[in-house]
Amino acid sequence: MANAKRWVYLFTDVKEAESYVNEDWEKVRGLLGGKGANLAEMTRLGLPVPPGFTVTTEGCNAYSAAGAFPEGMWEQMLEALGVLTQQTGGKKLGDPKNPLLVSCRSGAKFSMPGMMDTVLNVGLNDETAEGMVQLTKNPRFVYDSYRRLVEMFGTVVFEIPDEAFHDYLKEYKGQKGYKSDTEMSADDWKVILAYYKDVVKKHKNFDFPQDPYQQVKLVSEAVFKSWNGKRAIDYRRATNIPDDLGTAVNIVTMVFGNMGDDSGTGVVFTRNPATGENVLYGDYLLNAQGEDVVAGIRNTSKIANLIKELPESAKQLDEIIKKLEKHFKDMQDVEFTIERNRLYMLQTRNGKRTSQAAVRVAVDMVDEGLISKEEALRRVRPEDIDALLHPQFDLEEKKKAQANGSLLAKGVNASPGAAVGQIYFSADKAEQMAKEHKQKVIMVRPFTKPDDVHGMLAAEGVLTSEGGATSHAAVVARQFGVCCVVGAEAIKIDLEKKTMTAGGKTLKEGDWISVDGNTGEVFVRPIPTKVPDFDKQGDLLTLLNWADEISASNVRSGENNTPKCGLMVWANADSPLDAKRARAYGAKGIGLCRTEHMFFAPERLPIVQKMILAKTSAERIAALDELLPFQRNDFTGLFEEMDGLAVIIRLIDPPLHEFLPHLEKLIEEVATLKAKGETKGLIEKEAMLANAKRLHEQNPMMGLRGVRLSIVMPEIVQMQVKAIFEAAADCAKKGIKVFPEIMIPLTGHVNELKVIQPKLEDIASAVMKTKGVKFAYKFGSMIEIPRAALTAGEIASLAEFFSFGTNDLTQMTFGYSRDDAEASFLLEYVERGILPKNPFQTLDNDGVGRLIRLAAVEGHKVRPELEVGICGEHGGDPESIKLCFDAGLNYVSCSPFRVPVARLAAAHAALK
Amino acid sequence: MANAKRWVYLFTDVKEAESYVNEDWEKVRGLLGGKGANLAEMTRLGLPVPPGFTVTTEGCNAYSAAGAFPEGMWEQMLEALGVLTQQTGGKKLGDPKNPLLVSCRSGAKFSMPGMMDTVLNVGLNDETAEGMVQLTKNPRFVYDSYRRLVEMFGTVVFEIPDEAFHDYLKEYKGQKGYKSDTEMSADDWKVILAYYKDVVKKHKNFDFPQDPYQQVKLVSEAVFKSWNGKRAIDYRRATNIPDDLGTAVNIVTMVFGNMGDDSGTGVVFTRNPATGENVLYGDYLLNAQGEDVVAGIRNTSKIANLIKELPESAKQLDEIIKKLEKHFKDMQDVEFTIERNRLYMLQTRNGKRTSQAAVRVAVDMVDEGLISKEEALRRVRPEDIDALLHPQFDLEEKKKAQANGSLLAKGVNASPGAAVGQIYFSADKAEQMAKEHKQKVIMVRPFTKPDDVHGMLAAEGVLTSEGGATSHAAVVARQFGVCCVVGAEAIKIDLEKKTMTAGGKTLKEGDWISVDGNTGEVFVRPIPTKVPDFDKQGDLLTLLNWADEISASNVRSGENNTPKCGLMVWANADSPLDAKRARAYGAKGIGLCRTEHMFFAPERLPIVQKMILAKTSAERIAALDELLPFQRNDFTGLFEEMDGLAVIIRLIDPPLHEFLPHLEKLIEEVATLKAKGETKGLIEKEAMLANAKRLHEQNPMMGLRGVRLSIVMPEIVQMQVKAIFEAAADCAKKGIKVFPEIMIPLTGHVNELKVIQPKLEDIASAVMKTKGVKFAYKFGSMIEIPRAALTAGEIASLAEFFSFGTNDLTQMTFGYSRDDAEASFLLEYVERGILPKNPFQTLDNDGVGRLIRLAAVEGHKVRPELEVGICGEHGGDPESIKLCFDAGLNYVSCSPFRVPVARLAAAHAALK
Repeated sequence: MANAKRWVYLFTDVKEAESYVNEDWEKVRGLLGGKGANLAEMTRLGLPVPPGFTVTTEGCNAYSAAGAFPEGMWEQMLEALGVLTQQTGGKKLGDPKNPLLVSCRSGAKFSMPGMMDTVLNVGLNDETAEGMVQLTKNPRFVYDSYRRLVEMFGTVVFEIPDEAFHDYLKEYKGQKGYKSDTEMSADDWKVILAYYKDVVKKHKNFDFPQDPYQQVKLVSEAVFKSWNGKRAIDYRRATNIPDDLGTAVNIVTMVFGNMGDDSGTGVVFTRNPATGENVLYGDYLLNAQGEDVVAGIRNTSKIANLIKELPESAKQLDEIIKKLEKHFKDMQDVEFTIERNRLYMLQTRNGKRTSQAAVRVAVDMVDEGLISKEEALRRVRPEDIDALLHPQFDLEEKKKAQANGSLLAKGVNASPGAAVGQIYFSADKAEQMAKEHKQKVIMVRPFTKPDDVHGMLAAEGVLTSEGGATSHAAVVARQFGVCCVVGAEAIKIDLEKKTMTAGGKTLKEGDWISVDGNTGEVFVRPIPTKVPDFDKQGDLLTLLNWADEISASNVRSGENNTPKCGLMVWANADSPLDAKRARAYGAKGIGLCRTEHMFFAPERLPIVQKMILAKTSAERIAALDELLPFQRNDFTGLFEEMDGLAVIIRLIDPPLHEFLPHLEKLIEEVATLKAKGETKGLIEKEAMLANAKRLHEQNPMMGLRGVRLSIVMPEIVQMQVKAIFEAAADCAKKGIKVFPEIMIPLTGHVNELKVIQPKLEDIASAVMKTKGVKFAYKFGSMIEIPRAALTAGEIASLAEFFSFGTNDLTQMTFGYSRDDAEASFLLEYVERGILPKNPFQTLDNDGVGRLIRLAAVEGHKVRPELEVGICGEHGGDPESIKLCFDAGLNYVSCSPFRVPVARLAAAHAALK
Repeated sequence: MANAKRWVYLFTDVKEAESYVNEDWEKVRGLLGGKGANLAEMTRLGLPVPPGFTVTTEGCNAYSAAGAFPEGMWEQMLEALGVLTQQTGGKKLGDPKNPLLVSCRSGAKFSMPGMMDTVLNVGLNDETAEGMVQLTKNPRFVYDSYRRLVEMFGTVVFEIPDEAFHDYLKEYKGQKGYKSDTEMSADDWKVILAYYKDVVKKHKNFDFPQDPYQQVKLVSEAVFKSWNGKRAIDYRRATNIPDDLGTAVNIVTMVFGNMGDDSGTGVVFTRNPATGENVLYGDYLLNAQGEDVVAGIRNTSKIANLIKELPESAKQLDEIIKKLEKHFKDMQDVEFTIERNRLYMLQTRNGKRTSQAAVRVAVDMVDEGLISKEEALRRVRPEDIDALLHPQFDLEEKKKAQANGSLLAKGVNASPGAAVGQIYFSADKAEQMAKEHKQKVIMVRPFTKPDDVHGMLAAEGVLTSEGGATSHAAVVARQFGVCCVVGAEAIKIDLEKKTMTAGGKTLKEGDWISVDGNTGEVFVRPIPTKVPDFDKQGDLLTLLNWADEISASNVRSGENNTPKCGLMVWANADSPLDAKRARAYGAKGIGLCRTEHMFFAPERLPIVQKMILAKTSAERIAALDELLPFQRNDFTGLFEEMDGLAVIIRLIDPPLHEFLPHLEKLIEEVATLKAKGETKGLIEKEAMLANAKRLHEQNPMMGLRGVRLSIVMPEIVQMQVKAIFEAAADCAKKGIKVFPEIMIPLTGHVNELKVIQPKLEDIASAVMKTKGVKFAYKFGSMIEIPRAALTAGEIASLAEFFSFGTNDLTQMTFGYSRDDAEASFLLEYVERGILPKNPFQTLDNDGVGRLIRLAAVEGHKVRPELEVGICGEHGGDPESIKLCFDAGLNYVSCSPFRVPVARLAAAHAALK
C-alpha cells in the first residue's frame, strides 16, 4: 500500500487545488476533472459542499489499460469512505441506523454534459431503505429514491435498456390514472421498486446487489467504462477533446432536496446565458431531486422566486454564487440542493452560453474589472462572431422541421447564414423574381459560373448540387455574404423541366425552401430566421477594437526578419460597395481586388469578347480602349472608399475561355442546328465554337492564365495598369491618400516578373508624369504555385510584396482540383479521417504551411521589408490565421463578412 | 609599357603551353584559343609551323569592353611582328623587296567553325604586290592573292556584302566564257583587283588601305568584333558556349600552296570522321590556297594520292600527324600547306565526327592504350547514342527537301527517329493499312488517346497537330520507340474529309510524308532513311558496358544516408515485349509498369467499362474477376522476362473516364440523334453520356485518380495486387527469381497509404500462403504530388521505396497542365528564355529538383534503406540524370529506347 500510487483525493485534502490562479490549476483539473477540482475548491473556500472525494482521471486510464482497478485504488476508496463517516457525523455505508448514501458522478477535465454516467442514492438496499424510513419518516421519499437507484444502476452498470423500466412505470401510471410522478404514493413506488428488481433479475440472472460497497465499486467501474463509450468518443471527436484525458469519479454524500417543502433543488447561472445580461438565471423545484429539474417533469420556478419561498437559503445562495463568479472570474453554472433549509453546493462550472452572451459577458467583466481585455478576447470564439453576423434559423423551429421529415438534403456549408426563399433555376429568372416581383429567392443551379453572379446577388441564398467549399458558387457567396450550400449531391436538378428532386420529393420553380449555410442543410419549407446587425452590437464592436489593439501591439520579428508590425486583417473586395462594407467591418486594407469580376458586367462582356476574338493586336487594343474607362471608374471608387489604406489589385487571372460561352453547350447547339439542317445562326455559332475549342484546355486551372496570359498577350494588363494609375492619380489630386499595390498572379519563375514587371512599371511612371502627381506604390506577386514558394528568394528580388493565394497553392500542393475534389473524394477523405480537415477551408500545416513558411523566410532574406500576406479563402479561418501569424505574415485578407471573425482570430493568435 | 598587361604571345615563347598534359592546358587554351594554343604546342614539338603569334582572348574582352585596343596591345603586336622578321629571315611588313604577308585568324577556346572571321594575305598592297611579282615571277598568283585580300578585307572589315564582289567576278567570267577560276590569267585578276578596289572606294568613300600595319590593326579589330556578331552569338546559344570567353587573334606568316605544282594545300583527319575507321582521311589540292579545298571549286584529290605526287612531304605529313594524334590523344583534324616542297602545319584540332565515329574512335583508342575507359566515355555524348539507335534521314536529301520547299510544318520533336509513310487519320485505318496492306503508315491525328495505341504501334511515325512533349502521343511514342512529332500547329486536320492542310498545301489520305522526330520537321515527300541495329554495334555495346562499370563502382553515401550503390538505369515497360527490349538495351530493372495500359486491349475494354458502370460492388467485383486472368498473364510474362531483376508495378492511375468514350463526342452524338428524332441507340448513348458526365472533371489531372480512386473504389487495386502476387508466386515456383514492387500512385498524405497499403499487404500474404511460396517484395509510393515530397519523411514511414513521377511533379510544381502547356505558352517561354529549358524534358533544378532532394534526404532519414528512383519522362534526359545522381537516387527509369543513352549519361554523372 505504501508504494501504491495515489488515486483518491478527499475534497478536504486537495492541496494541489490551493488556488485556481495557481498555474498548477490546469494540472489539478486534469487530475481530478473539472467537477472534482471545483468541488474541492469550493470546499477550500468554506462553502457548504457535502463531504466527498474524487478518484482521479489517472485511475480511469489505469482502469482502461488493465480492465480492472489498479493496485491500491479500492483500498484508498475504502479509506476515504471511512473519512466520510467522520465528516458526516457517523453516517456509514450499509449501516441501517445511520446509512451513508452517496452519488457517483463522472467528471472529465472538460465538461461533456450528458456524455458519461452518474448514479445517485448509492448505498440504498433493503436494509438501509428501512433504516431511512425510520430516520426520515418519509417512506415515499425512500422508495422513490431506492427505485431510482435500481433504475440508474440497471441501465448504467448492467446496460439494461431504459424501456425495460420506463414502459412499466408508464403502464402502471396509466392503469392508476396518474398524470404525474407526484401522484405516486409510497406504496406505488414500492410496487415499482419490486418490479424494477425483477427486471434486473430477469436480465442478469442475479439479484440487485445489496452490498453497498459492491454498489460503489460497480458504479465506479461503469463510470470509467463510459469514457470509452460510443457517445463519449463521438463527442470528443466533434469537440477535439483528446482521448487520453480520462474521467474522474466523484463520490459525494447524498443530500436530498426531496425531503419536504423546506427542501429543494435547482440550477442557476450567475448571468443570463442566452443574452449575457448580469442577472441570476435559473430554475428550482421544491421537494425534488436534481434530475427532476432537468427532466422537466414538473414546472420549475424561476430562481427569483426562491427568496419568497426559502429566504434564508436564497440569500445564502446569492452570496455564494457571487463569490464563486468573482473567484472563478467567469459566469458560473451552479447546482444546489436545499435539504431541510440547509443549502448544499453540488457543482459549479463555467457556464455554457450563446455567442451573444459570450461577447456581452466578456465585455461586461472587463468593465467590472474582473478580467483583462486579453482574457475577454480568449473567452469568445471566432465561431461566436460568425454566428452573430449571419441570419440564423430559430433552433426550435429547425428541430421541428428535422423531426417532421422536412430535411431534403445536406451539402457543404459553403457560406454561413440562413436563407428562406422560392427556388429558381437560372440567374436571370432569380434576379427578375427578386427585383421585379420582390420575392425572396433561392437560386438553384448544378453549379455557378461568373455570369450567374447577378442572380446570386439578387438571391437570399444559393444552392448547388455540384462543387465544393471553394467552387465558384462558394467563393462568390462568401465574398458577398450570401448564404450558400454547395455540392448537395442528393439533389438532382432538371434545368429543362425546372425541377429538383431528392429523396423522392420533387420541387418545382417557385416552391419554398430553407437553406442553412452554417450546417449545409436544405429544408423543403420556410423556417423563421433572425438577422443581427453589426453596427448596433456595441459589445462586439468594443471587443473587436480590443482585438485590433492586441494584434497591433503584438510586434514580431527575429530570425524571419519580419517587418515590425502585428498581423492585420484586410479584406478581399472587388467593388466600392465591397470596400465600404470591408471598412465598416474593420478591414485595414484591401488584400485582393479581382479585376476580372469587373469584366462580367452585362455592358462590358461583349467588349471583352470582342477583345478576346480580336485577330490583331490593334483590334485588341481598340477593344481594350473601350474597357479602360470602366476599369478606371471601378478603381476610382475603390481608392475613394479606402482613403489612407492599401489596395492590392490583382491583374487579370482567369483563362480567356471563361468569358466565352461554354464549349459543351456550343457543341450541343451546333450539332443540333446541323442535324436539323438549320443555317440561321450556324456560322456565328460555329465561329464561336471554333474559338472556344481553340481556347479550350484539358486542365484550365493549370493553363494559360495569370502572368502567363499577360506574357503571351500583354495588352490587357497594360490597359489595367494604366486604368489603375490614372484612377489613383486622379484621386491623389483630389487629396485622397492612395496606396495602390499591383499584384501579378500565378508567377512560377522570377523570369516571368522580369519580362512583365518593368513594362508595367514604365506605364505607372508615365501616367504619374502625365498627371503630374506622385504617390507610393508597389508591384508584387501572388505566391500560389509551389515553384514560386520554392524559389521565393529569387521572386523577392523583383516582387515588393507576396500574397499567398492559398486556394491555388493548396490545389497545386495537394494536386486537388478546386472545381472537382470536394464533390468527388475530398469530403470522404475528411469523414474517414484521411485528412484532418478540408485543406481548402483550413490551411494544411505540413505541406502548404511548410511552403508558406519557407517562402516567407527566404523572401525576407532577400528583401527584409517584403510585405507578406494571404488572400485565399483561408484568410478568414481561425486555425489558418494562427498559422499565418506563426509564419510572420503581415496580414490576412478575407471576404468582408469574415473580417470581424478574422480580427478576433488574429488577436487569439497573438495571445497564444 | 612595362606595366601594361601581356596581350601577345609568340608561338615560340608560349611557356604556359609547356605540355598539354599539364593541368594548366585548359587555361592556356582559354587564353590563346584552341588554334593559337595548338599552333604554339606544335611549335614546341618542333613541327614546321610558320612563325606567328597570338593576341589573347583577354585582349578580345578588353577590346569589347573599351571599343578600342587596350593599353600596350598594339605596341606588343608591333614588337612581335619585328620578331617574325627575324624568324622568317628578314621578311618585313610592307617591304617591297622581301614582303612579310600574314594571315589573321580568329580562334576561340572552343572551335566555332565558320562563325568568326579570317583574312589571308594581309600585307599586300600595290608596292608589295609588285615586289612579290619580282620575287615569285608569278603575277597570276600575286594578283589572285591580292584580290582575295581586298575581297576578304572588304567583307570582313568593311562589311561590304559578298555579292558586291562575287557578282562582278561571275559576270566577268561569263563574258570571257570561263567556267572555272583556273582559267583566269594574271591580267584577268588584275582587272578584277581594280574593280574590287573600286567596290571598296564606292562603299567606303576611301581607298583600300595601303598601309600593311593599318591592315593588320583593322583586321584584328574585325576579328574581335566578330565575337559579338549575330552569327557567333547564335552559335554560342545553341552550343552553350559562354559569352565571356572571347576569341584570340592569330597572326601567322603566310605560306603559299599556290606557287606551282611543287606546292599544295590540304585538310586531313587522322581517322575517318564518318565511320571512325583508323585510316587517314582527307583531301588536298596541288597549286592551291587553303580556301580552295573547302570551297570545292576544283576537284580535290584523296590524301592517299599525295604519296605519289609529293612523296617527301607526304611521308613527313604522315609522321607528323601520327605524332599529333598520340600527343593530343584524340583524332586530329589538320590543315597543312606545302610551299615549294616544304611542308607547313597550319592547324591541328580535335576532329568533329559523326556519332558512329565518336563511339568507334573512343573504343579503339582505349584498345590502343591511348586513353582510359573513363576518357572514352567522356568523349561520347548522350546524343551520339541516341542518334545511333533511331533511323535517320540522309542529311543531304533532307537539305534538298528543305531547299525545294517540301517542308510542310514544324512541331515538337517528341520521339526521335525518321519516319516515311502514307498518312491515315484514324488508328483503325492506320493499323489496317499497315497490317493488311503492308503499307508504311504515318498516323495523323489532332491528338491521340489510349485507344489509339494500336494504330500508333502499327505506324512508322505519329504526327499530331496538338499536344506537347509529354502528351499522350509523345509519351506512348517514346515508350515504343515510334518516331513522333506533336503539336505541329500549322497543320489543320479535317477528320471528316480526311485531309490535312498547311501553308496552302492539302494532303489527303494515302499521301506520302516524312516525319523527323529529331527535329520536329514534317516534309511532303519521302526522304530516304537509314536504320541502325543495336545488337550489332559492337563498339557501342563495349562502351556502354564500361559505362555500367563506372556507374556501378561509383558508390555514393554520406549525409543523405543514400544506400550504397551506384545510379542504375531501369526501364519503363508495360508488356513482356517491352521488358525484353529493355533488358536487351541493358536495363537493370523495371522502374514503371503502367497497369492501366493493359486495360485498353480490345477484348478487355468492354469488361473494364462494365466494371466502371457497375451499380454495386458485387457487379464490379464480378467484372474484375473477368479481368484478373488477363492481368495475371501480363505480369507472368513480365516476371519471366525480368528473371532476377526488380519489377515495379504501378497500380491503376488514370481517372475512370479515360476508359469511356469522350464526353464532347457523346454530347454531339446525343444532340444529333435528338434533333433528328432518331430513337435507335439513343437510350444507350444517353446512359453513356450520363456516366461520362458523372465522371467528368474540370481538371482531370488533379482529379479522382491514383490512390484516391483506390480509396474510394478499392476493388480494382485489390484485383491487381492479387493478379501480381499470383503471377509472381507461379513464376517463383517455376524457379524464376521475382522481385515485385507494388507502387501506389498519386500519394499526397501518409494517411492514404495507411488506409490502403495494409489491405493490399494482406492480399499479398494471403496469396503467398495459398500458393505455398515466399519471396521478397516491396510496397512503395510515387512521389509526384508536391505535398508528398514536402512530407516525405512521413510517407517513408510506410513506403519502402519512392519513385518520383517527375511528369506530374513538374506539372503540379509549376502548375503547368501537361496536356495543354506546350501547345499554349510553354514553348514560347522556352524560346524567349523565360525558362531555360522545357521542364517536361529536363528537370527544373530550383523547383522540382529542390523537392526531389528534400524528399530523398527526409525519406532516408526515416528509412535509411529506402530505394529511391525516378520514373518520369526525365529518366532518359542526361541533364536530369545528373540531377538524380547528385540527389543520391538509386536508379532512373526511362523508356527502353532511351536506356542506352541513360546508361552513358549515368556514367557521365559519375565521372563529373
